[in-house]
Amino acid sequence: MTNSRRLGIAIAGVGRIGHLHARIIAEQVPAAHLAAIYDISADKAASVAAEFGIEAAASIDELLASPAVDALAICTATSTHSELIIKAAAAGKAVFCEKPISLSLPEVDAAIAATAAAGVPFMVGFNRRFDPGHAAVERAARAGELGQLTLARITSRDPAPPPIDYLKSSGGIWADMLIHDFDMANFIIGSPVVQIWAQGAALFDEEIRAAGDFDTAVAVLTHANGAITTIDGSRKAAYGYDQRVEVFGTAGMAISDNQRVNNAQIYRENSSQLSALHYFFLERYTESFRNVWLAFTNYALSGGPSPVSGADGRAPVAIAMAAAISAQQGRPVSLDEIH
Amino acid sequence: MTNSRRLGIAIAGVGRIGHLHARIIAEQVPAAHLAAIYDISADKAASVAAEFGIEAAASIDELLASPAVDALAICTATSTHSELIIKAAAAGKAVFCEKPISLSLPEVDAAIAATAAAGVPFMVGFNRRFDPGHAAVERAARAGELGQLTLARITSRDPAPPPIDYLKSSGGIWADMLIHDFDMANFIIGSPVVQIWAQGAALFDEEIRAAGDFDTAVAVLTHANGAITTIDGSRKAAYGYDQRVEVFGTAGMAISDNQRVNNAQIYRENSSQLSALHYFFLERYTESFRNVWLAFTNYALSGGPSPVSGADGRAPVAIAMAAAISAQQGRPVSLDEIH
Amino acid sequence: MTNSRRLGIAIAGVGRIGHLHARIIAEQVPAAHLAAIYDISADKAASVAAEFGIEAAASIDELLASPAVDALAICTATSTHSELIIKAAAAGKAVFCEKPISLSLPEVDAAIAATAAAGVPFMVGFNRRFDPGHAAVERAARAGELGQLTLARITSRDPAPPPIDYLKSSGGIWADMLIHDFDMANFIIGSPVVQIWAQGAALFDEEIRAAGDFDTAVAVLTHANGAITTIDGSRKAAYGYDQRVEVFGTAGMAISDNQRVNNAQIYRENSSQLSALHYFFLERYTESFRNVWLAFTNYALSGGPSPVSGADGRAPVAIAMAAAISAQQGRPVSLDEIH
Amino acid sequence: MTNSRRLGIAIAGVGRIGHLHARIIAEQVPAAHLAAIYDISADKAASVAAEFGIEAAASIDELLASPAVDALAICTATSTHSELIIKAAAAGKAVFCEKPISLSLPEVDAAIAATAAAGVPFMVGFNRRFDPGHAAVERAARAGELGQLTLARITSRDPAPPPIDYLKSSGGIWADMLIHDFDMANFIIGSPVVQIWAQGAALFDEEIRAAGDFDTAVAVLTHANGAITTIDGSRKAAYGYDQRVEVFGTAGMAISDNQRVNNAQIYRENSSQLSALHYFFLERYTESFRNVWLAFTNYALSGGPSPVSGADGRAPVAIAMAAAISAQQGRPVSLDEIH
Repeated sequence: MTNSRRLGIAIAGVGRIGHLHARIIAEQVPAAHLAAIYDISADKAASVAAEFGIEAAASIDELLASPAVDALAICTATSTHSELIIKAAAAGKAVFCEKPISLSLPEVDAAIAATAAAGVPFMVGFNRRFDPGHAAVERAARAGELGQLTLARITSRDPAPPPIDYLKSSGGIWADMLIHDFDMANFIIGSPVVQIWAQGAALFDEEIRAAGDFDTAVAVLTHANGAITTIDGSRKAAYGYDQRVEVFGTAGMAISDNQRVNNAQIYRENSSQLSALHYFFLERYTESFRNVWLAFTNYALSGGPSPVSGADGRAPVAIAMAAAISAQQGRPVSLDEIH
Repeated sequence: MTNSRRLGIAIAGVGRIGHLHARIIAEQVPAAHLAAIYDISADKAASVAAEFGIEAAASIDELLASPAVDALAICTATSTHSELIIKAAAAGKAVFCEKPISLSLPEVDAAIAATAAAGVPFMVGFNRRFDPGHAAVERAARAGELGQLTLARITSRDPAPPPIDYLKSSGGIWADMLIHDFDMANFIIGSPVVQIWAQGAALFDEEIRAAGDFDTAVAVLTHANGAITTIDGSRKAAYGYDQRVEVFGTAGMAISDNQRVNNAQIYRENSSQLSALHYFFLERYTESFRNVWLAFTNYALSGGPSPVSGADGRAPVAIAMAAAISAQQGRPVSLDEIH
Repeated sequence: MTNSRRLGIAIAGVGRIGHLHARIIAEQVPAAHLAAIYDISADKAASVAAEFGIEAAASIDELLASPAVDALAICTATSTHSELIIKAAAAGKAVFCEKPISLSLPEVDAAIAATAAAGVPFMVGFNRRFDPGHAAVERAARAGELGQLTLARITSRDPAPPPIDYLKSSGGIWADMLIHDFDMANFIIGSPVVQIWAQGAALFDEEIRAAGDFDTAVAVLTHANGAITTIDGSRKAAYGYDQRVEVFGTAGMAISDNQRVNNAQIYRENSSQLSALHYFFLERYTESFRNVWLAFTNYALSGGPSPVSGADGRAPVAIAMAAAISAQQGRPVSLDEIH
Repeated sequence: MTNSRRLGIAIAGVGRIGHLHARIIAEQVPAAHLAAIYDISADKAASVAAEFGIEAAASIDELLASPAVDALAICTATSTHSELIIKAAAAGKAVFCEKPISLSLPEVDAAIAATAAAGVPFMVGFNRRFDPGHAAVERAARAGELGQLTLARITSRDPAPPPIDYLKSSGGIWADMLIHDFDMANFIIGSPVVQIWAQGAALFDEEIRAAGDFDTAVAVLTHANGAITTIDGSRKAAYGYDQRVEVFGTAGMAISDNQRVNNAQIYRENSSQLSALHYFFLERYTESFRNVWLAFTNYALSGGPSPVSGADGRAPVAIAMAAAISAQQGRPVSLDEIH
């Protein structure tokens, strides 16, 4: 594909996140256009295609056969990711894949190998790396402004648990929810995780407890450079989506704090009130999602290293596996144990 | 026009602000669509029309004759506003007009009268009323949360002066820049201004001084209910666009504070740093501009009182005139003097 | 007096503010000690003297005759200030005088002349200059960090009006309350005020209205260097003592924001709460009052320019007089009119 | 002792912390007075005694024999604490003991038993419980404002390591530094710790590494009610003393944030700056130290439950022991193992 025309992006799977990507690509990425979509539900596909005035493909193969499609955005169920990555790579398409690449490391490795062999651009959708606040923290860390990094801290609390049916098939709190935070730990510290201690608890949600999953989670990650990241997560924060990232080093600290719905302050007799936090990721990470597509489009058109490589996508999957073992067995788990 | 289809909006004048409106209407207002555009420069009109895949009209009359056009957004030079409002009203179109309606009060009154006579929706483009932070301040004031209002304070500082040629034809700092703040004073206090004391100074910009205008401005507005609003403005704030609004009453205070580019904080040896403010109004008021078009579209389709009425548009024009006299003559000016 | 021993400070007038000064001198200023006190009420004098284990003097003359007294802190009623300053100067004592020096400019001038003639240290008690936040703003302004200064803004709102009897003899809102802010304007801008526009209103307090005074006040001060300061004040802020100072220049802005009782934040479902502001000046300016006495003691012992000179004390008195005229006559008043 | 006179407090050990307590008792606690002091260094004792105009005792026994002494504040080396507590209890004195009570649990238990047997007031000096911000967090948690508590987070970073000689005899980072945070975890969650996972690292300080201690520490505490507290600590924060406490529950969150030297903000071209954090505990916890002595004095004079009981003082000692084992052996440690 050349720089002389806009990148044609097809989306496989237009559920909540695929639909969101479609809208961004159609409206906010000048160098790209929405070329085609596919969904396992023909009705869903038809409805979204109509919204953007394009055709819905009848199959993934049809999608990949189209010369208008330069890139495939994979937003289908996790279990289908690796197979679609391999297919898209074989068709010579640039590949964008939602997190996680797969919950099986051999599948992850096969997918990475396929994109490498085909020489196609491959990027994983860890959108939080593109949040301006989190990215500013990472920039300060990489620029050496914080000295030698020794500690990081990540807060990750959702406003409310997803439906229990979703949860049951999600892979559990480590692979479904904290995988974003495991990626963030690698992103801000810039050194791979070598050991993890994880604790989960089902403290307030009966359905989650009954499903054998956790509503509350803590993880301590030891990085190869010695730095230690602590993460705490919850499936429910009454006050909204709580997403904070902090890196600490010998020369200083960088924090990416929460954002609020607006900047109003109301002063009353005994205190003053700030407005609410954003409700959830659609509101909070609006800007990061746009930046994802600007980054992917630029990468697919102009080359260079992947903004979020296959290795970047593999690492948090392995950490999530180690976390699940640690939480279950009550012992620290080395990443060397995970294959 | 009926609720059964999307509102067709035509834009007259697609310079910076008209172009911005076009993009928002085309991409972010589900209940509206961009029906047509016109610009005095045929090239400009053609280029913007191409961007949105529509036709450029050859004249305002052609625009107004089109059955696809339900509403006209007037974004042309101020001197043409009242004539276009009258034409659009005569054609039965809903009218959106950029601020100020006109710098002549008789023209303002004629425009208002025309829309009233034609019974068409009429709204003035004071976008700041739709900023979530400023609107939360106004809501708190209206809801009585602050008790009896006694003081308001508005900070209005641009990042850099506009080109001197623009300034010379702008009507001066009161009518061009502080008119937004005069409107904000009326909006948050909710009581008309009856007297103004204004002081301008040209302290740092030689070109502005040579043009007889001010780079620094202070105004004290007395409202009919006794409340007093102080405004300070500057054509240049080194740290970015500074837009703060505050209302104080017997039961409390509400502040709409500045927004920052992101929420990162960098802690170093002697202090900690927050990120920069937004550069200017395009970045700062993104959300308010979108809300403007959601409000106008809903109003044009569903009726009800105008979100920003002709009277709302008239008031700050009169205040700006009084301010100019006060600053020139060094005396307080009653709004009764202004016709 | 020499540096080899601690400065003996006598206090004339041990009402609320004199008592506060006594405690600070006795407990927190290593280089000074409380040498003696006098009060027009012998009972009050005896009680405070007992608290600190010292003797109460029977008269000011006895106080000034004591060789243990190196300095006199004048905390009596304003009408007695100038006479006491002149007496203390004649006795060769260093003089500290509470604000205002006097409400009569000739008396102010006579007091200043007396201390100059006697060559004794003289300092006026404008404690807010010693607040760490306000002082940091002034330091940034003086250091040129803000470029050429063009605007300043001062918020001055008390938690509740003083007793009406106090108010009636106070000299009015300009001389009693805003005099601190007039001093702050001079302090942060560093250029004398040449003109003032002032507006007062009695909006919510019937007693204040009946007394012909204002509960709400706005002033616009024009400085000799062209900078403009706006001040707004209120006798009652439901949320506590609101004291903010801001300077704006061509290179930046410095703000001294309010302080809170503590740094706790409570996040609940729809917003988050910060703790209350300090209640009033005793709580808010604790640190500034201590700094006042450290500064005075050092000055009296070691010489150098007065931390707050007689001229510094005179300026806001003249501004307050001009403000009262402006508010009464509805016109801007030049400081040249005030004698 | 009765309420009719002020509490006479004697201090054993007037090093840094004992001297600080002496000053607060002498100057800021109206209901108490500094009755006597003792120090193992006669010179030190004489110098501090002279500062407050009192006599230095020649021995602890002399101190305890004095009828003017109602209470003993034990600020000597940790190894002497339990013996002094037992002596003071036998003498019928109220006892205040600096943390930790002892590094031996049997000694801790003996000390607690002695005060219980003698029926004397006993309080441990965990001053952070009396910080207004931390206390507001605890109050919100206890009042149920946060719902069921599930997570807590404590940040504890000193500005610089103490002298290496001190460190070597300090008992290590867990018993010396994090003991405050272990106490804070119990304080804010209000449920005992049952298990701990701890990790230490010597990442940047060669001397600390050589001494076998850690400069960086992370701990995960599981409470009996299921809540999980994560703590991260560092011996060196370039930006000053970093002390934050956070509790999270099903209904909300409470944070006690850092305090700054002042509330000034400097806005420059690319960002805005807040002032520095307080340097260390003397500056940061000024108010909490005063509150400690107000609480102890009131408790010793008026009875009621101890503000910080012997059991409160025992708990973090046991946690510190468990933490040291966990960090050394790389496994979670149950508090049941600790005797």
